[in-house]
Amino acid sequence: MVEFAKEMKKGTPVILPIGAMEEHGRHLPLATDTYQPLKIADMVAERIGGIVAPPVHYGNCSTTRNFPGTISVDTEPLRHYVREILMEFGRHGASTVVVLSGHAGGSHMAALKEAGKDFVEKYDTKLMVLSDYDIAYRLKGELKIPDKDGHGGMIETSRVMAIRPDLVKEEKKDEIPDFPPFRVLKHPEEHFPSGIMGYPTRSNRELGEKLNEAIAGELAKIIENMLEE
Amino acid sequence: MVEFAKEMKKGTPVILPIGAMEEHGRHLPLATDTYQPLKIADMVAERIGGIVAPPVHYGNCSTTRNFPGTISVDTEPLRHYVREILMEFGRHGASTVVVLSGHAGGSHMAALKEAGKDFVEKYDTKLMVLSDYDIAYRLKGELKIPDKDGHGGMIETSRVMAIRPDLVKEEKKDEIPDFPPFRVLKHPEEHFPSGIMGYPTRSNRELGEKLNEAIAGELAKIIENMLEE
Amino acid sequence: MVEFAKEMKKGTPVILPIGAMEEHGRHLPLATDTYQPLKIADMVAERIGGIVAPPVHYGNCSTTRNFPGTISVDTEPLRHYVREILMEFGRHGASTVVVLSGHAGGSHMAALKEAGKDFVEKYDTKLMVLSDYDIAYRLKGELKIPDKDGHGGMIETSRVMAIRPDLVKEEKKDEIPDFPPFRVLKHPEEHFPSGIMGYPTRSNRELGEKLNEAIAGELAKIIENMLEE
Amino acid sequence: MVEFAKEMKKGTPVILPIGAMEEHGRHLPLATDTYQPLKIADMVAERIGGIVAPPVHYGNCSTTRNFPGTISVDTEPLRHYVREILMEFGRHGASTVVVLSGHAGGSHMAALKEAGKDFVEKYDTKLMVLSDYDIAYRLKGELKIPDKDGHGGMIETSRVMAIRPDLVKEEKKDEIPDFPPFRVLKHPEEHFPSGIMGYPTRSNRELGEKLNEAIAGELAKIIENMLEE
Amino acid sequence: MVEFAKEMKKGTPVILPIGAMEEHGRHLPLATDTYQPLKIADMVAERIGGIVAPPVHYGNCSTTRNFPGTISVDTEPLRHYVREILMEFGRHGASTVVVLSGHAGGSHMAALKEAGKDFVEKYDTKLMVLSDYDIAYRLKGELKIPDKDGHGGMIETSRVMAIRPDLVKEEKKDEIPDFPPFRVLKHPEEHFPSGIMGYPTRSNRELGEKLNEAIAGELAKIIENMLEE
Amino acid sequence: MVEFAKEMKKGTPVILPIGAMEEHGRHLPLATDTYQPLKIADMVAERIGGIVAPPVHYGNCSTTRNFPGTISVDTEPLRHYVREILMEFGRHGASTVVVLSGHAGGSHMAALKEAGKDFVEKYDTKLMVLSDYDIAYRLKGELKIPDKDGHGGMIETSRVMAIRPDLVKEEKKDEIPDFPPFRVLKHPEEHFPSGIMGYPTRSNRELGEKLNEAIAGELAKIIENMLEE
Repeated sequence: MVEFAKEMKKGTPVILPIGAMEEHGRHLPLATDTYQPLKIADMVAERIGGIVAPPVHYGNCSTTRNFPGTISVDTEPLRHYVREILMEFGRHGASTVVVLSGHAGGSHMAALKEAGKDFVEKYDTKLMVLSDYDIAYRLKGELKIPDKDGHGGMIETSRVMAIRPDLVKEEKKDEIPDFPPFRVLKHPEEHFPSGIMGYPTRSNRELGEKLNEAIAGELAKIIENMLEE
Repeated sequence: MVEFAKEMKKGTPVILPIGAMEEHGRHLPLATDTYQPLKIADMVAERIGGIVAPPVHYGNCSTTRNFPGTISVDTEPLRHYVREILMEFGRHGASTVVVLSGHAGGSHMAALKEAGKDFVEKYDTKLMVLSDYDIAYRLKGELKIPDKDGHGGMIETSRVMAIRPDLVKEEKKDEIPDFPPFRVLKHPEEHFPSGIMGYPTRSNRELGEKLNEAIAGELAKIIENMLEE
Repeated sequence: MVEFAKEMKKGTPVILPIGAMEEHGRHLPLATDTYQPLKIADMVAERIGGIVAPPVHYGNCSTTRNFPGTISVDTEPLRHYVREILMEFGRHGASTVVVLSGHAGGSHMAALKEAGKDFVEKYDTKLMVLSDYDIAYRLKGELKIPDKDGHGGMIETSRVMAIRPDLVKEEKKDEIPDFPPFRVLKHPEEHFPSGIMGYPTRSNRELGEKLNEAIAGELAKIIENMLEE
Repeated sequence: MVEFAKEMKKGTPVILPIGAMEEHGRHLPLATDTYQPLKIADMVAERIGGIVAPPVHYGNCSTTRNFPGTISVDTEPLRHYVREILMEFGRHGASTVVVLSGHAGGSHMAALKEAGKDFVEKYDTKLMVLSDYDIAYRLKGELKIPDKDGHGGMIETSRVMAIRPDLVKEEKKDEIPDFPPFRVLKHPEEHFPSGIMGYPTRSNRELGEKLNEAIAGELAKIIENMLEE
Repeated sequence: MVEFAKEMKKGTPVILPIGAMEEHGRHLPLATDTYQPLKIADMVAERIGGIVAPPVHYGNCSTTRNFPGTISVDTEPLRHYVREILMEFGRHGASTVVVLSGHAGGSHMAALKEAGKDFVEKYDTKLMVLSDYDIAYRLKGELKIPDKDGHGGMIETSRVMAIRPDLVKEEKKDEIPDFPPFRVLKHPEEHFPSGIMGYPTRSNRELGEKLNEAIAGELAKIIENMLEE
Repeated sequence: MVEFAKEMKKGTPVILPIGAMEEHGRHLPLATDTYQPLKIADMVAERIGGIVAPPVHYGNCSTTRNFPGTISVDTEPLRHYVREILMEFGRHGASTVVVLSGHAGGSHMAALKEAGKDFVEKYDTKLMVLSDYDIAYRLKGELKIPDKDGHGGMIETSRVMAIRPDLVKEEKKDEIPDFPPFRVLKHPEEHFPSGIMGYPTRSNRELGEKLNEAIAGELAKIIENMLEE
């Protein structure tokens, strides 16, 4: 496609959103971790330019994997699938790629970073791999959000309320689950009854908009710094 | 997610659309093979019920792979990634799954079918893997579409005009490329100058709508037959 | 081996026959798909020169896999095994390779084509991957063979009668099985009672000889065209 | 071995130390991340019983991989190698396994956790995967260690001084490197001139002993809690 | 195939010959290691019954791999390809399988044995994996063949003279190459100038016939012992 | 690490010991095959210089795999794990690498040799892969050790008595097990009641010391020859 080739020549950054299908409590949709990076990717592209590539919708989810509807791809096929996409961006001359994941699980993020290993070795491309939650959680202090707020909590619920208010239900519940430390468990959901870690009852749409603005602004700045290197 | 579990118990079919990012001539968008199965999946789900799962956006493209913007995932990571998704549908109790691909390349379709091999072995689930073009091409005679019309041609252009008219450009060109027979080529694009096989100049939106209706109707019927088995 | 090196230097094409062990009805041997490409390879080599490499005897069979005696190798080990052989041909300087498969299943053929992917990328070798049935089925009109004739049918039985008449039994039966469309099935044999699709009762040795001659002639021509490129 | 079988029957926990060969500044040995978990494993086994299995000496190191002597095993072979070991512990009837890694890199720890995936699925064994640094870093506040102290810093140097004082050199240097955020880099060492993050000049043997005691005590407690479950 | 099913029910052993395409000096054909096990398999089957399956023609060759015409498949694809074939024999109810390789290289034989690992775990089938040279070399003392005689030497040349005299050339040369010990070499052929280890000039057809008789007799006995277990 | 880089520049050989956790009869420890190559590696390094890298402690064991405590890693993950380590040695400029395994099983040794395949292809490094038993068994005649002495026997017991006398128990038993020939067995231990092949009752520490000296001396000589090439 001629237009794609032109953008690559100009050095336009490519943003690859990574979503997930994952339990987030009764009040949030399974695709919660998809809506957020898609929104942020659009907001960033609007500010600094950028091609938002079609998202990868299925990632690796460990703690929630036994809840109905959570689709957890093993980290190896995930890594190899994303590796192929990145290698293709490289082959077509992308100079900057940002992999932006809504889900922030450790193994999932590791798989995405490992997906970039051959890519940075072969191509002279700048690569960034992050979750929008890497930025979101830094804002807790400033926005007076409880430190333990996490999966399906105040931040996440507010953000989805700002993006897809039609998909957020009333049935919210605060919970801080207590996982036994350092375990690899066959049934993690036994320690995670509602699939929530945090305070969704304190969520609101204005906070969500503020958060999305702040995240998009911060990410835009980080990418611009990278472009100037 | 409670709702997902309920649907699985009811036996609601899950439709997994498979898209592609692939050159389709200057007049069609890279995501041409994504818009079509997504549209058909929605139309089918509306008629007979069904959950449309988030699509897999990147597939395997061989002939067009050297055009800018074509993202071709090797068939093995494609197979394994889709296999994981199917196995998860099985684990969560899906009784019927339809994998519907916009792209219809031989190796690509083979990878999707192979992705289902362990799935049908392990789960008692009905699985269908097809391209909407498997149905579309059967309609050629009835709709007086030239037999050689294919990739980016009269059918495909008309269908995208019916779905996303804003993305179809005027700059159309008819072409029937002449590939040397049975070859595995490093540079197939040398025989495929415009990335088109067919007659896009004869396309129109009404034909596209008729085609999409016919395809969705036929697929709905086939799925209903499968449900009744 | 000195002779091999000389042939490679001269540009002699290497023909790699791919067979299968697969149910073909009660009247045909399991190695039906091996006898045919081996015969054609010899006939082609006689006409235009060529080294016929030892065949790969086991391929991927899906529909017939549950019949006794069908040996179905998963497409991945098949691809990797054949890939290794091709890469070795390349390493030793082959300038032209023809992979000729008797079995023509979609996933099987895709695996053979994918086996050539790294090969054409690394070596400057011309590669052709086909089934002799890709050519045979084109002759149906001319030879007045019913369009639906296929696996174990009139063409295949006639061809084996011409090659190994001692292995063809009298016990023939015509059948056009009715598979549910687009399915990936755990038990495809339930829809394929005799392992036959076509009209073996109409077969005869003369037709088989004519078919083999025509196929070998056509393939020889196609290879010669490739050599002249 | 009869003794091994007896211990397995009694439910004795198996501790598998995971080391690394990795740059830790000029003052620390390459095997720094091996000495520490080996020591802690011995201390824990002394307190609560336990079999210390021979360590896995080579792990995955990303940021330091281009320093001379750093041996970085890709996460996939690491995962599969450790997976095999765990599956063998399971096959022999281990009821509790603790994987204790000295190195704490994100992809490395993810590989170790993924190594346990099939294991907990197949065997009814309790599995814990952690780095001793997961515990060590929690002690920073209490012991007045700067928050940014990390790789090769005050904690790590003190701990090695307590275990292998003969291997720690005088040539220490404090440094807090400044990595560009979220990047996957071909040359991370350009931002990491001395391979140190932290304050090794403030290290001392007494602190190291205190730290090792505290870590071993805490880990023993956590394992005992797991045994009582 | 009905006949195959019957034989499996009767407990007829399946013999899978494994060949190779490998340099054997100027006097022997590349397929030397194929002709021998095929002949032995036929002789054994004649004596004690048995189905000789179509051979696997390409194996793993290390020392000779850089000679023109040697096709060396990496041990992993070889293992996986043969594994699939064995698993299919198991699925179809084989009670006894003999894998008989002409080539006897260490890594090649290891790959064939590993190919049987899952097979004996899953199926209650007796499996034997050997090279006919495992038996042939035991006969050296009795037949006064020099101890160092090996690849392409007196035994091998004599045996091929007995099987395919038309393919053995006059141009023989004795040689005992001197490999540096225990090395993994990029260019082993530098130490192996003629691709021969042994005394082919002392070969003769009668000896070959005697050897083949003795090997077939011994193997038949070993298989019968296994059947009686 | 600066010192490592210096040694690599000087051409110092790297010795990578490979151990095993494997049944060796009631009188020997599971890590018998680790103590021996570690000792030999140290002795060789003392004589001719050399860096002894941390050992790989888990290998592939087939015949003993069902005895309690034997940890058998499949040959593929073993190969890939060791491959990674070797590739890293190559990346850091090693000019000579010696892989020295205590365990000498055929598939295990094949995996270690295959691990070096990419390494010698990519790096200009001399590589040697051997078991110390490749040398030890050559000494049988000279030292009047019975020819059949092997696993856990007179040689092995004597050698461990010389290295770790504290770990050798009195409870010795001579045994020459009788394996059915050429079999791949699910339960090899049924033919190997005590896990011993040989004459451990004839072992003594002096013999062990003599053996270790002789092996180390011979290996040092072989490595020096390789260095001079």
